[in-house]
Amino acid sequence: MPRIHFQQQLATLKDKLLAMAALSQQALELSVEAYLQRDTGLCDHVHDIEAAINAAERGVGEMAYELLAKEQPMAMDLRFIMAVIKINGDLERVGDQAVAIVKRCGELQKYDPNAGPENLPGDIAQMGAIAVKMIRRAIRSLLEGDPVLAEKVLDMDDEIDRLNHETQAALRDEMMRRPEVTENALNSIIVARNLERSADHATNIAEDVIFWVRGSDVRHKAAAAAVLQ
Amino acid sequence: MPRIHFQQQLATLKDKLLAMAALSQQALELSVEAYLQRDTGLCDHVHDIEAAINAAERGVGEMAYELLAKEQPMAMDLRFIMAVIKINGDLERVGDQAVAIVKRCGELQKYDPNAGPENLPGDIAQMGAIAVKMIRRAIRSLLEGDPVLAEKVLDMDDEIDRLNHETQAALRDEMMRRPEVTENALNSIIVARNLERSADHATNIAEDVIFWVRGSDVRHKAAAAAVLQ
Repeated sequence: MPRIHFQQQLATLKDKLLAMAALSQQALELSVEAYLQRDTGLCDHVHDIEAAINAAERGVGEMAYELLAKEQPMAMDLRFIMAVIKINGDLERVGDQAVAIVKRCGELQKYDPNAGPENLPGDIAQMGAIAVKMIRRAIRSLLEGDPVLAEKVLDMDDEIDRLNHETQAALRDEMMRRPEVTENALNSIIVARNLERSADHATNIAEDVIFWVRGSDVRHKAAAAAVLQ
Repeated sequence: MPRIHFQQQLATLKDKLLAMAALSQQALELSVEAYLQRDTGLCDHVHDIEAAINAAERGVGEMAYELLAKEQPMAMDLRFIMAVIKINGDLERVGDQAVAIVKRCGELQKYDPNAGPENLPGDIAQMGAIAVKMIRRAIRSLLEGDPVLAEKVLDMDDEIDRLNHETQAALRDEMMRRPEVTENALNSIIVARNLERSADHATNIAEDVIFWVRGSDVRHKAAAAAVLQ
């Protein structure tokens, strides 16, 4: 098979992954909106998107695997396909997080509407905005093959970790002060953790982009730096 | 390079992964013990094991990648290496869960010793035992190339999901009844979720073993079955 054909196939694989990334990003964005607005119609929509994400994941995985098996790619192309396989898994898990968030939205319906997320401390909306932005940037870094942009995603992870920490502490204190809001506060605690995990997936994607372009594994460098701190 | 040498390298890769699996399993087992006993020495030990897991992950990842790049494996060998890469990631994440659990152990020290996990509802010990057993079985199914054993791991996931659900509900009710135990109950809620996630990683490993041996992707069959339910 001519090499140019292989390059076309790699471009198709990238397009498939980008289409999937758009779905994952949308699912996460809508899940936070559905949760904050208690919008059950939007919750159903997130479930539909997640089904589409799972189908997309299968398509990307099968194509990546076939290219590995038939084309025996080398060096940067091999790294690209390996990155696609990992990013595929992370995007699918972002979809899982979005579904976990809308499940909490269902739970919310059961309890006191005066103790909804808007009446509780912590900033779920801001956490959601940052997580979505991280995914968007990570995907753009993939699209543009830009490791510097990918590094910015890694920096943003500290911000969401800090917000998550503050939100968890504020909600815990609120539960102790007002035990009647315990169920809803617990829902918000879980949603905050889901958003923090979504941000972790964005971080993983950014690391895979850096590995693809530079051929070095950023995670182990970060781990080495952490040990030295 | 002769093919027999390649088979030896695959066997070495498997041994490396099994050694790493032993570390991950041990980390999880000890983290639950450390949490339930509030044993800070054991917590430190879990941190040490996690550092070893991360080093092992790097070794396995590098070897798998090199085999892919240099040997251009086909069919079942390619599937095996792909499974190793995915399992490598799951085992590393089990180590992360163990560390997350011992972090809660540190939190516990701060609060009322009379509201320790042993005085709260929910069965963390049992959840821990099942999660560890799932990982052990998943790894044995890899060692023996036994997809039937791997399927048993998938069945066990329902049990831990049920236990997690019961534990979360019982802890939530306890917090509302006794707001003074909120911090410790929250710690137990988070540990239960960490254990449920560890079990998910065991499930992923079992699915990868099935994919390696049978060449079919069990996840999508499960997803298709779920749609039909």
